[in-house]
Formats: sequence, C-alpha cells, structure tokens
Amino acid sequence: MSTLETTVGVSRRARSMPPSPIRKLAPLADAAKARGTRVYHLNIGQPDIETPACMRDRLKAIDDRVLEYSPSPGTPAFLNSLRRYYERRLGITLHDGEILATTGGSEAILFAFMACADAGDDVMVVEPFYANYRTFATMAGLNIVPVTSRGRDNFHLPSREVWERTLTPRTRIVILCNPNNPTGTVYTREELEMVASFCREHDLFLVSDEVYREFVYDCRRAISALELKNYEDVVIVVDSLSKRYSACGIRLGAFVTRNADVYEAALRMAQGRLSPPGLAQFIAVGAESLADDYTHAIVEEYERRRNVLYEGLTSIPGVFLEKPEGAFYCVARLPVENAEDFAVWLLTDYSRNGATVMLAPANGFYASPLGKNEVRIAYVLNVDDLRAAIEILRDGLATYAQRNIAAATNSDIDSV
Amino acid sequence: MSTLETTVGVSRRARSMPPSPIRKLAPLADAAKARGTRVYHLNIGQPDIETPACMRDRLKAIDDRVLEYSPSPGTPAFLNSLRRYYERRLGITLHDGEILATTGGSEAILFAFMACADAGDDVMVVEPFYANYRTFATMAGLNIVPVTSRGRDNFHLPSREVWERTLTPRTRIVILCNPNNPTGTVYTREELEMVASFCREHDLFLVSDEVYREFVYDCRRAISALELKNYEDVVIVVDSLSKRYSACGIRLGAFVTRNADVYEAALRMAQGRLSPPGLAQFIAVGAESLADDYTHAIVEEYERRRNVLYEGLTSIPGVFLEKPEGAFYCVARLPVENAEDFAVWLLTDYSRNGATVMLAPANGFYASPLGKNEVRIAYVLNVDDLRAAIEILRDGLATYAQRNIAAATNSDIDSV
Repeated sequence: MSTLETTVGVSRRARSMPPSPIRKLAPLADAAKARGTRVYHLNIGQPDIETPACMRDRLKAIDDRVLEYSPSPGTPAFLNSLRRYYERRLGITLHDGEILATTGGSEAILFAFMACADAGDDVMVVEPFYANYRTFATMAGLNIVPVTSRGRDNFHLPSREVWERTLTPRTRIVILCNPNNPTGTVYTREELEMVASFCREHDLFLVSDEVYREFVYDCRRAISALELKNYEDVVIVVDSLSKRYSACGIRLGAFVTRNADVYEAALRMAQGRLSPPGLAQFIAVGAESLADDYTHAIVEEYERRRNVLYEGLTSIPGVFLEKPEGAFYCVARLPVENAEDFAVWLLTDYSRNGATVMLAPANGFYASPLGKNEVRIAYVLNVDDLRAAIEILRDGLATYAQRNIAAATNSDIDSV
Repeated sequence: MSTLETTVGVSRRARSMPPSPIRKLAPLADAAKARGTRVYHLNIGQPDIETPACMRDRLKAIDDRVLEYSPSPGTPAFLNSLRRYYERRLGITLHDGEILATTGGSEAILFAFMACADAGDDVMVVEPFYANYRTFATMAGLNIVPVTSRGRDNFHLPSREVWERTLTPRTRIVILCNPNNPTGTVYTREELEMVASFCREHDLFLVSDEVYREFVYDCRRAISALELKNYEDVVIVVDSLSKRYSACGIRLGAFVTRNADVYEAALRMAQGRLSPPGLAQFIAVGAESLADDYTHAIVEEYERRRNVLYEGLTSIPGVFLEKPEGAFYCVARLPVENAEDFAVWLLTDYSRNGATVMLAPANGFYASPLGKNEVRIAYVLNVDDLRAAIEILRDGLATYAQRNIAAATNSDIDSV
C-alpha cells in the first residue's frame, strides 16, 4: 500500500511540529552551490573555532574494551568536571542532586518543559527567540506566549508592566536565553532580578538558557540565574558544551537546579533514556581546566567579528541594528518589505562574482507576526569571509531595490 | 529560600514520572558492596561483550579539528551504513526520507510516541514490558493500556480476541518489543501479522522495537516489522546499535518508517534537537561490514548463557519459566509471595560465602497489578559467574523459605 492510501494519521502534535526556520532555505542554498555559486552562510551558528586539543587528544586515550552505559545522571568524572567549572566560573558550589549531564542543551530544555508544565500550559518567551524552543514546547504540549523585545531597545527586556499584562492563567514557565540567541542581548542583573521576582510572585519557573555564557563583549559579564539569591527553587539552568568548547557535534550539556522536585523529575526522564552520550563525557573531562586565556582568545576573535559585522551592516543604507552585546548572532532590520523573499532571492536570482549569502529570515524567531523585515545573522565566519559577505549583502540590497523599482515601473506600465 | 518553602510546584506529568524499577534497589546493592559483599547483577542488561575493534579503532582515527554539528537526520556516511545493514540483514532497501539516526533507541521511541499520538491518547503495550516505555509515555502524555502475556505461554501474544477486547477508543499505537525485553520471547510471523492486521483495522500505528534483533536462539530468526507486506504506512521500527555491537554507551539508534508524514514529524523533532551524537556516528560507520561470524560468535555465547540459566533456574524447586527464545532476559516465577521483598532481603539480610545476587522485581514491568512473584533476570554475566549466581539464588530461596517458616512459627508463638 502506498502512502497515498494511508489511513492511519499522525498526531495533531505532529502536524503542528514547526519546521526549522534556520534550515528552511537549505534546499535553495544547495541548488545555488550546485550551480557553482559560493554561499556565505550567515544563517547558522556552527563556529569554525577549533575544539580544544585536550578534548580531541582524549579521543585517542579511550581504551575501554566495552563502550558501556554511563550512569543516567552522567559519569562522576564529568559531573565533577562540571562542578569545578561552576565553582571557578561562577563561584557556585553544586552538590549531588543538583546537576545532570544531558544530551546537549536541547535535552535539558525538553526536561525543563516536561518537569515544569503540563500539556495545555503556557510558557512565556521573550521574542525574537531561539526557534527550536517551539519544537520542545510542541513536544511538551505547551503554548508559547511571547513577550516582545524591540530592536530599538537592543532587544533588552520590556518593563515588568508588559510582563504582567502578558501573563496568562496557565503560564507556568518563563524561558530566557542569556546571552541571547538570536539577538545577542546580554541581560543586566536588574533585568534578571525583575524576571525572577515576576516568576516568584506568580509561581512560575525560570528556565535560563545560558549556553552562550562565555560570549560577551565590551568587558560585559553574563550573570547566571544561578547567582540570583533567594530564587534557588525557581531557577533551572540549561547549559551546553557546544559553544563553550566549540564541540557542537558531541551533544553534551547540563541541567542544573536546586529545586529537589524538579531534579527528581528530570532524573527520572534521564533514567528513562538510560545515559547521556558516553564518548562525549569522557573527552570533556578536563576541559574545565583550560586556562582563561583559552576563552579570552576566542571571545576576542568573536568580538573582532562582531565589530566587523556591526560596522559593515550599519554602513549599509537602511540597515538598522544596535551593537550586539554577546553570543554570536544579531537581528538586523533590512530595507526590504519581506526579508524572507529577499533571502530566497539572494539564493535563487542573485550572485556577485560567483558568490551570494544565506540569511535566516527573522519571522521564524517570533511567535507574533513580527520580524518580517528582519534577519538573524550569525557571525561565525572569519573576518575576511565576513567582510566579503557584508559587501555581497550591500550590493544585493541595492540590486534588489533596483529590481523592485523596475518591477514596480513595469507593473505601472502593465496596469496602464 | 530553602526548598522547604517552595511554592512553585512541578507538573502533574513530573509527579507521575515513574522511577526506574531496574535501578530502584541500587542503593541497597551499593550498601551491600560497602559491607564487602560481592553482588552478582542479574538485574541489568549491560553486556560484557567487547565492542568491535573496528569501532574502537575509529576513535583513534578522528582527526576533525572542529567537532561540528552533524546533519539532523544523521551523517550521510552513517545513514548509508545503516542502509547497507538493512539491505544485507533483512533484504530491505531503505530510501532517503525513511531513516533517521537517533540518540539511542530511546529517542526513536519518544519520537514515535510524539508523532503518532496526542496527550490523553492510549498506547497498547504487551505486558510485562520494557519499563522505560512508561517514561516515554508519561513524557508524551499517553496512557498505557496493557495486553497481558503469560509465562505459561512463554509470553507469546494472546489471541486477537483479547486485543479486540482491550482496545480503547483512544488507542493510537501498539508498541511491540521483538525479541522481547523483559521476557525473551521472539514473536512468530503469524503473531506479527495478527498485530499488524489489528493495527490496520483500527487505524493504529505499530511501533516495533527491534533492538535485540540479532539475539535469537535455537536457529530462530527475528522477523522485522519492516518485512510485513502492505503495512508500510503503519510500521515504525525502533532500532539501536547498543546491543548489536555492545556499544550501549555511545547512544546511537535509528527511527525507520515508510510513512512520509511520520518521517516528517520525526525529522522536525530531530531538527529541534539539532544532531544525533557525532562521535558515535563516526565510529559506527563500517560496523555493518562485520562478518556474520561476529554476530554468530556472540549469539552462541548468549545461547550458552541462556542454557546455563534455564537449566539452573528450572532445577530450583518452585521456580518456573519456559525456555527464553531471544534477547538476554527472562521473566521467572519464584516460590515467594512477593519478589520485591525477596530481592530486597537478598541485598540487605543475606549473603553466601560473601556474595549475593541482585534481581529486578517484575512488578515494575507490568501496568496491571501482576508479576508480584516474578523477577526479570538478565543473563549478561559470563557462564562461571552465572552459575555462581544461580547457586546463590537457589540457596537464598531455601534460606528465605526457612526464615518465613521460622517467622510464621514465631508469630504463632507471639499470638498464643
């Protein structure tokens, strides 16, 4: 029987599972590459920084004859490595029963959603937001209630008044990404205290996604929600080694909470899936001892890229963004009506000296019908490629505007 | 604020998340070990068989300087390796869009539950069943509706009549583990056809968990649900490399379906969590080319263990089981009223020549209030250890019976 005759239907949940806005245009990029066009990827967050040698060397040191299950919460060696990291980096001592190794930050988000809310409940998210939150919310049966942050405020948080107004009777969770993907915003201690106090007052959990913790510029410091006093029972921190050590592929993260009930729920889910990835845990041990120089050098490199990007983009007529503060993304407003149409056009109809750029339209990062003329840009390319990509974008925008004028003129003629 | 003052409460889902029945008695085993008692683990399925050298060698060959994200569906190299395996092992050709690499079989189960049913729906499970199905069902908001299989039938499936009677209006999925964990049962083609036809008639999905496919004895062959003709749209196969290559720790599995809608839903979830484990995928490539001798030798070893276990257990007065057919588990009835009490007593109050055994009480593998006098036994120990463990169990049962008689006599005296 072919699938045309399918009678058995997928779930409503399956039908509402969102496609990835980041990968949406991938087939068009593939087609452009097949035509021989070079595509500069400004759409994805895969860093080109080397994974630390100490991690790669440990691969060669694995001599287990049986690659066994590791304990569900993670191996003692890896959990101790994480504890040393938090002690050293945040001055925070985590005990047994407060930290779980997870399969990337992704699994930690899923565990948090599942542990803190039931199907039909709401999760408040500052938009624009990391698009995959929507996938995990859909899996957990949660509705996304957006709190909008604005480019003119450099995407800092709206006032508490706005939060109070946005709250619904079924809100159970606030999720905050800090430093923020996609906006690059680094929230101040005051902003975090405001949100935590809002959570306390309304009996909500605060899920703080801090996977970009190391990436802050202009001498900023990312405040961890773990540092907030008197909110220990409210806070869950989602962490990941992916960006910190440029090791996205190993799929290793952490779930941190001082709320014993939340931990217990997450532990049971962890036991259900048996183990986090074992090879990854093994090679990650010791990475916490990398000298601060390691992080400084990487952050300096990203800061350089951020500067190149910011200067380049703001010199393009009609492009607007404030200076990104952290992570390696920004959301920029373009002088186009529909950024998705423009991103498609760049891949299908445009090239400059045999090259084009791929952008992620920002509408996929909003739950509200906003962001139509915005794109998310990742600055993970080296400085030379970034400069080249910006020049292509500058020319592309000019060409696209000309094309639109021409089209409008043609259509005027047509309508005569 | 301490957690005693916690006001913010976890979800109902979190509160109903089941603890692992396999790991439940672990603290007691740890205490026994701390007292110097040797504990033979008959409770867990961690094989002692070596991971193939070809996989371990590839660890040393990884020379990527950046451990990057892999594509969400899996790397082309690993997906091709899986395709070659299915081609060779089952004579089945899988195309693009029919197979996804997953983080262990666990993630494939979660994807299947999410894609095929909504919160509040029912999933039919043959009990006793792999206990972690309950965790994934709880995460997905599904209720488990048990179809009971009986030890006297060697846990083969009950008649279709029983299935029809058990069906509920909200049943969306049947999940079958074949070869079965915990019973070791290998279903016949007729049994599979019966269940598939039941699924077809009632518009249900058949999720076939085949992670023990290689482990069948007495010249049996495990039929894959992929081999059933005219059920392509109904079937989802959950697979894993954990047992096939004794590589439980790498967390690598597969989700296979010819239903395009189900695939699309699973793909979107896969995109949400970005990638399956990358190191695992890399080392797994090529394992499909292991000569048949590799599998034969391992299966022979397990068959030897199965024979030792079966002969040993059935020679103990009052112990009942039929000869297990596959996987490396069995469910045995013990001459005790409450197998959990007995399992606890073995760890807390008993030892023989400084050793005891750890059993998994079978009640945790049932949704009905059954299995109270049953245990699940894993035969992953080598033959010598297995023999020693059986003798301890024999002696333990005799001692326990004596103790009960003594206790009953004492209590008679007390009540005089």
